[in-house]
Amino acid sequence: MSAMPHLAISNRLRSTPFTSRVQQHGVKAFTVYNHMLLPTEFESVEADYWHLCEHVQVWDVGVERQVDIKGPDAQRLVQWMTPRDISKVVVGRCVYTPLVDEHGYLINDPVALKLADDHWWLSVADSDVLLWAKGLATAGKLDVTVHEPDVWPLAVQGPKADDLMARVFGDEVKDIRFFRFRSMPFEGHSMNVARSGWSKQGGFEIYVDDASVGMKLYDALFSEGEDLNVRPGCPNLIERMESGLLSFGNDMTMRHTVLESGLDSFFDLDVDTDSLSISALRQQKAAGLDRRIRGLVLSAPAGAKPVAIDPINSFVLNKDGQPIGRLGTQAWSPRYRHQLVTVMMESEFFDGSESIEIQLLDGTSESALIMSIPFDFAAAGIT
Amino acid sequence: MSAMPHLAISNRLRSTPFTSRVQQHGVKAFTVYNHMLLPTEFESVEADYWHLCEHVQVWDVGVERQVDIKGPDAQRLVQWMTPRDISKVVVGRCVYTPLVDEHGYLINDPVALKLADDHWWLSVADSDVLLWAKGLATAGKLDVTVHEPDVWPLAVQGPKADDLMARVFGDEVKDIRFFRFRSMPFEGHSMNVARSGWSKQGGFEIYVDDASVGMKLYDALFSEGEDLNVRPGCPNLIERMESGLLSFGNDMTMRHTVLESGLDSFFDLDVDTDSLSISALRQQKAAGLDRRIRGLVLSAPAGAKPVAIDPINSFVLNKDGQPIGRLGTQAWSPRYRHQLVTVMMESEFFDGSESIEIQLLDGTSESALIMSIPFDFAAAGIT
Repeated sequence: MSAMPHLAISNRLRSTPFTSRVQQHGVKAFTVYNHMLLPTEFESVEADYWHLCEHVQVWDVGVERQVDIKGPDAQRLVQWMTPRDISKVVVGRCVYTPLVDEHGYLINDPVALKLADDHWWLSVADSDVLLWAKGLATAGKLDVTVHEPDVWPLAVQGPKADDLMARVFGDEVKDIRFFRFRSMPFEGHSMNVARSGWSKQGGFEIYVDDASVGMKLYDALFSEGEDLNVRPGCPNLIERMESGLLSFGNDMTMRHTVLESGLDSFFDLDVDTDSLSISALRQQKAAGLDRRIRGLVLSAPAGAKPVAIDPINSFVLNKDGQPIGRLGTQAWSPRYRHQLVTVMMESEFFDGSESIEIQLLDGTSESALIMSIPFDFAAAGIT
Repeated sequence: MSAMPHLAISNRLRSTPFTSRVQQHGVKAFTVYNHMLLPTEFESVEADYWHLCEHVQVWDVGVERQVDIKGPDAQRLVQWMTPRDISKVVVGRCVYTPLVDEHGYLINDPVALKLADDHWWLSVADSDVLLWAKGLATAGKLDVTVHEPDVWPLAVQGPKADDLMARVFGDEVKDIRFFRFRSMPFEGHSMNVARSGWSKQGGFEIYVDDASVGMKLYDALFSEGEDLNVRPGCPNLIERMESGLLSFGNDMTMRHTVLESGLDSFFDLDVDTDSLSISALRQQKAAGLDRRIRGLVLSAPAGAKPVAIDPINSFVLNKDGQPIGRLGTQAWSPRYRHQLVTVMMESEFFDGSESIEIQLLDGTSESALIMSIPFDFAAAGIT
């Protein structure tokens, strides 16, 4: 697969209110996510990475569609969908909630926002959670409405995000704690602002629910941030791999269970909930797993060469040429000078930070270290 | 929106078994459809169009994902989802089945294949019908399994499709009637072959369920069809607009009802079924519609200039500058020398093939004829 084919635009690939600005800012490529355009690169993935780690960026993440669940049974429906116990979540909290079917397979991994006791937003990754939630609500005869509101998140990410946000929203925005949100006024309009975002560089997500106010906000973030070296950005492949942020659809899919996806640290199966998946997951945990997500750190800089992407055949092979895992994502880390790879790996290779020899699809082989995710570079002596 | 930004490739945008062949054949652009790569252009959209109308093409439409529904309640679940009465559908039939939620809004518009009394495939357009069907089945406690099998359709389309298919599958393939399918052997492997496809040029869809046999089949279609001038192709924007084939996501979306989308000719609301939508649709039909899909034929060749795509503002305006409809798809027809547009149009403009003056977003205005879809060019005196 060549790295950059052309994308044919049609109305089906929805723009966000900010797409025209993103293009004025010189976006180099898009991906498609929830039937919508998501920028992937401005200057270059590596230049965007260094800038994100040092300054502040504004990201058009309108693709993070909200599934709005409201009504007396709203909390019940959310609990059906996730093995995480949400009974004690308070209004104003963001909660990472893997969504799981009754057999334990992943549906999505949104951040859930509790807006009121009877009102939730699921800020979803790339699958139509709207349909899953509607299907459950309809056939389950739940007293809820489920719809996709006109909300297009903007993320402000990077070490200078607090400074920039305070200039636009006032110092009060700095008081928002991690994974909390509150309603903040801008130009006479209030919108939810959370301390969250898909990087480990710090920052906020603004849930823009009015396109014209959103455009003023977008422009204000750039005009107020000029001396902070603000730039347009987007979820960054290198940063998210170094930080161990998993991508639904890339690292784990609907064909993997939530346990195989290594997300069990986010819930406790000993807690009784009405989750649809709880009994299947308890059985799977007791039986043990055949595969589980792992990270690989390839030793040699030569490993930076991309492996051909082919979902039928993109396996990592052991030194005997036997497939031991399916490749998820790969990225060259310019900070650590190693190639980072996620793999859904067979159980016999789970443990040990032993080094193995793997074959790449181009016939060459590389020595690789098997690690948990997030990568603990220091423990592996990588600095 | 510039016509051709770059598409950033990741594992999340799934390839089909034929993606590598499509690239060898010089694909110019992809779109993303059901989280998968769909070619959109080879030589050029117009050159591909003329070739499709005169010869035969092989299309990689692996994006037509199958939702496999099997079990004692399979037919019940399919009937829940569609207002079309499927009680009399026989095994071996393909049925166009708009899927509709309990309020009458579209979920998708697949072709359904009845494989057995307890076994259906839904060959879906661009939304995760898998999740809608699973949600209904799970909460409705239906006795079915719902999953996405490893099936990647290949379409063979064009006036020479019968000849080419007969060379590969034998003359028996010519006996398959329109919207019927049967299991056909190739290289010792059987797969479902239907007389269907998303063009009006005739042809077949082959439901490839084995990647390696599929590759042999793909190559055989090209080697056997050399003197028929076989070429790679894909759903063609011009051909499908001239033929009045609607595209879910472009012309109608989840925010439109099935009646607004003009699909009521495919079902009879007077027939009692267990469809979730039947009472809502009966009420909506009785109350009348505020909007409905219509075609516009722009009079002047100048109308061939693309209108900026912007889902927030892509309205067609009347001569007073008031929005009267939301733009769906537009294509320049080289055969009829007119620009064809689909619009979700306000009710006062439904009727009459009257000509109106519309403003385009660039400030110019064009005279346009309002028509039903499919366009009846002859009745409008367009030849």
